[in-house]
Amino acid sequence: MDQLKPSPANSRPLTPISFIERAATVYADCPSIVYGSATFTWSETYLRCLKIASTLSSLGVSRGDVVSVVAPNIPAMYELHFAIPMAGAVLNTVNIRLNAHTISVILSHADSKLVFVDYHSESVVLEAISLFPPNSPRPRLVLIAEGAESRALKLGFVSDYDAVVSNGDPNFDWVRPESEWDPLTLNYTSGTTSTPKGVIHSHRGTFLVAIDSLMAWSVPKEAVYLWTLPMFHANGWSYTWGVAAMGGTNVCLRKFDAAAIYAAIHNYHVTHMCGAPVVLSMLTNGNSKPLEKPVEILTAGAPPPAAVLLRTESLGFVVSHGYGLTETGGIVICCTWKKKWNMLPAAERARLKARQGVRTPAMAGIDVIDEETGMSVKRDGKTLGEVVLSGGCVMLGYLKDADATAKALKRGWFFTGDVGVMHPDGYLEIKDRSKDVIISGGENLSSVEVESVLYGHPAVNEAAVVARPDEFWGETPCAFLSFKEGVKQKPTEKEVIEYCRERMPRYMVPRTVVFMAELPKTSTGKIQKFVLKEAAKAMGSSNISKL
Amino acid sequence: MDQLKPSPANSRPLTPISFIERAATVYADCPSIVYGSATFTWSETYLRCLKIASTLSSLGVSRGDVVSVVAPNIPAMYELHFAIPMAGAVLNTVNIRLNAHTISVILSHADSKLVFVDYHSESVVLEAISLFPPNSPRPRLVLIAEGAESRALKLGFVSDYDAVVSNGDPNFDWVRPESEWDPLTLNYTSGTTSTPKGVIHSHRGTFLVAIDSLMAWSVPKEAVYLWTLPMFHANGWSYTWGVAAMGGTNVCLRKFDAAAIYAAIHNYHVTHMCGAPVVLSMLTNGNSKPLEKPVEILTAGAPPPAAVLLRTESLGFVVSHGYGLTETGGIVICCTWKKKWNMLPAAERARLKARQGVRTPAMAGIDVIDEETGMSVKRDGKTLGEVVLSGGCVMLGYLKDADATAKALKRGWFFTGDVGVMHPDGYLEIKDRSKDVIISGGENLSSVEVESVLYGHPAVNEAAVVARPDEFWGETPCAFLSFKEGVKQKPTEKEVIEYCRERMPRYMVPRTVVFMAELPKTSTGKIQKFVLKEAAKAMGSSNISKL
Repeated sequence: MDQLKPSPANSRPLTPISFIERAATVYADCPSIVYGSATFTWSETYLRCLKIASTLSSLGVSRGDVVSVVAPNIPAMYELHFAIPMAGAVLNTVNIRLNAHTISVILSHADSKLVFVDYHSESVVLEAISLFPPNSPRPRLVLIAEGAESRALKLGFVSDYDAVVSNGDPNFDWVRPESEWDPLTLNYTSGTTSTPKGVIHSHRGTFLVAIDSLMAWSVPKEAVYLWTLPMFHANGWSYTWGVAAMGGTNVCLRKFDAAAIYAAIHNYHVTHMCGAPVVLSMLTNGNSKPLEKPVEILTAGAPPPAAVLLRTESLGFVVSHGYGLTETGGIVICCTWKKKWNMLPAAERARLKARQGVRTPAMAGIDVIDEETGMSVKRDGKTLGEVVLSGGCVMLGYLKDADATAKALKRGWFFTGDVGVMHPDGYLEIKDRSKDVIISGGENLSSVEVESVLYGHPAVNEAAVVARPDEFWGETPCAFLSFKEGVKQKPTEKEVIEYCRERMPRYMVPRTVVFMAELPKTSTGKIQKFVLKEAAKAMGSSNISKL
Repeated sequence: MDQLKPSPANSRPLTPISFIERAATVYADCPSIVYGSATFTWSETYLRCLKIASTLSSLGVSRGDVVSVVAPNIPAMYELHFAIPMAGAVLNTVNIRLNAHTISVILSHADSKLVFVDYHSESVVLEAISLFPPNSPRPRLVLIAEGAESRALKLGFVSDYDAVVSNGDPNFDWVRPESEWDPLTLNYTSGTTSTPKGVIHSHRGTFLVAIDSLMAWSVPKEAVYLWTLPMFHANGWSYTWGVAAMGGTNVCLRKFDAAAIYAAIHNYHVTHMCGAPVVLSMLTNGNSKPLEKPVEILTAGAPPPAAVLLRTESLGFVVSHGYGLTETGGIVICCTWKKKWNMLPAAERARLKARQGVRTPAMAGIDVIDEETGMSVKRDGKTLGEVVLSGGCVMLGYLKDADATAKALKRGWFFTGDVGVMHPDGYLEIKDRSKDVIISGGENLSSVEVESVLYGHPAVNEAAVVARPDEFWGETPCAFLSFKEGVKQKPTEKEVIEYCRERMPRYMVPRTVVFMAELPKTSTGKIQKFVLKEAAKAMGSSNISKL
């Protein structure tokens, strides 16, 4: 058979940006975003994105430049998921809970050319910029003022968001990727060292994870999607673009509690939402009441505890459970539910649903492999191994970090660092995450990062931070410390916590501090973290009052 | 930003074969195929496919070889959609309604190495092989005997299907594509000339159209899919692979009428089915009764007439309407329904649904362009132009026909040859198909092909074949003829039909023959087909009794 080659008719680069172009036609007059009293249609959102992209181009942003956003789940944040790539630039969303130092490290490492800053993050970003090394180039700043009287120019911002939109050209010919492997996003993980790693996803990878996630969760056309998951978390697990593909409605909330969620569900007829298990806990605490219609909720980050799961489902939520990492751009393992499991007793259903599951349809493979032999572990639900993934949703690599990229992507697999087992039915279950990651309220935090701050305390000899189970947050950081010999002024627990507060984002601060004469160590002198993990577990839930 | 390159972890070739590999794990013990009293599970189907692929390899089938199948919607036909590519070969399904001559042309043009032949097609395929030129290589034949006493070896077949399965190795390491652009399928169109054209789709293209079609129609997990659309029609519009992606159940029927469809819907709780509008007509004629639960039905090939649409919907079918060609591997334009249209009066709903619609989410673009200027026509629902398509679902090209490929794929678009308009809301409506295609009962037939046979009749001077509307079949071929001067024995209508029956498949034979002194022509002597089309339309429905 002759070898036919791809031609432009069948090989236009795959990109999720095509979804909004299509939505602007198909769902032109259907609601794209609702936010308080404001409602936009898909044709309006598309035109606004074109205008923003054109202004970015006028400001000198060009193909391959990084443009950052520090904002919560507001309409601007959603629009920028399209508008920044439509200027040919790479979208870099930044967690609003980070402190100035970390934001400074990220913006500098990313060589960010321009940063959109929500007015609530104005001071932390200005401080972050002030921390840049003296002669290094600084990004320009645009203030998202949300209708407040604009103080943008006074504060050193080049413009405000409304002006960026209104000065733009709605007929702008958006900058299409030259190759589907061109970068689309840059997301920083808290990582395993104190330097965050910049995860790069291509247009192709993002397109694939977006449609894969829609299929895996069976999201229908015109779904009404409530943004409880931060868009700065792996771009809202790709549903930012996914909602456009299905012509759905994005219900945006600047911040939320249970009452705000229930009100949004009622007012907008919400059909879908995502969130860490902490969101499920929130929904089932206090004044929860049964839903009028079922709402699909997808959770990941940690398995939902059986009690929380059953309470959530009894209210009318349909809970799906999945797994993904920043490096996969969204959920790529999903506990695909089988109809016949509905007939099982509740406890058995909860046990099955706590498993992370199977690969999503567009992924090529998942496995649990023995770290020494590299072979698949037995499918016995017991033998531990490292979780590896392969397929189009896997990142291109880490920015300016060829070593870390080579370590993560090798032998045709992405090595997650997470430890799991494979059950006899082919469903995977995570048993232990990368040694040093703690997930608190859906935020990943690196125990190594916290430890490095603790080691900076003049009285501290040894420090180890592990996860302590928490009914509400899932986990909280728990620090074990020993003091240097001869230290006279030993700090109290409160003083250690205060010391940390001044030096790291609030969500990373240990909630419990335990002092020991010496930390348990192996014969070669390595701190035995698993012993400390057991100790933290034995303490039970930290019962910390909510933030 | 540094230029990161794809690596094996994120760039394994996209292929729909991965769907069955996944289904064998996720849906291992769920039903894959039901057929009469037989039921298979996904793990059984996958093992059978591995065994078939291994036997094909043992028989010498290797990467890039074409393997053909002449069979209706039986389990073997479904399995071969996976098993043949799993041997590295290219799947070529052949319409069982073709005559020996056409099958011979196809098998020979395709250089088919091996043909799976359903026992009902045994004689026509043996005849087709006998028509091969004397010294040209003939494909080997495998008989699908369906449990009937095997006469395979006696008749010159190398094996029968049961032996191919049972002799195979379930641990076979299936042959993965080296590139996602490797060919996966070869489907022949009736085309616009008397030589059929062989449409080649890649693994990537087929993967994309399969998931695109699932999204566009919102097919959920574990759907129960009834095979009323022939799998040899563009591989069942890609739902062959799509059902595996969702772990659905394939309900296979060797042949069907309304009673068989209603029985299957009732017995197996069918949720989804596809078919030409003739299937809708069939369901609403005679003893139809309201469904117990709604059934989704996707139709394409011709817009469903308003009366048929309303009758079908009143029974509980939810009708979706789309458009595609063999060259797109499935439906790539879909009349995406908006919730708010449900509030419109029935006649208005029917008018909106008769439009072909908008591009599916994974396609890059559709347009209607002026044939002379190449520019988009006005979005006024009136201005005619050629329908062009672009995106990952478009074929690689035509086999051994670089000219036709270059003519169809140019300037970044696939030129469909179909004529349409663009409505102000961006929905496309086909107004006239390629000048010479008639769609009768869901089968495309080429008027040029029928004309070339008619021109072979010794008495015929001029021949033109156009579509005549038909309530049941949608359209039937209508021939307009003039005789040579001085012909003494002018044939009757019946004799002309008899002449055609001997020379072409039954579905291509004109149902109406009109004799004229001279056919209407342009000043340059070209037959004015549009005049004849109007004349055929004016005759009204042909009211031919069903075959």
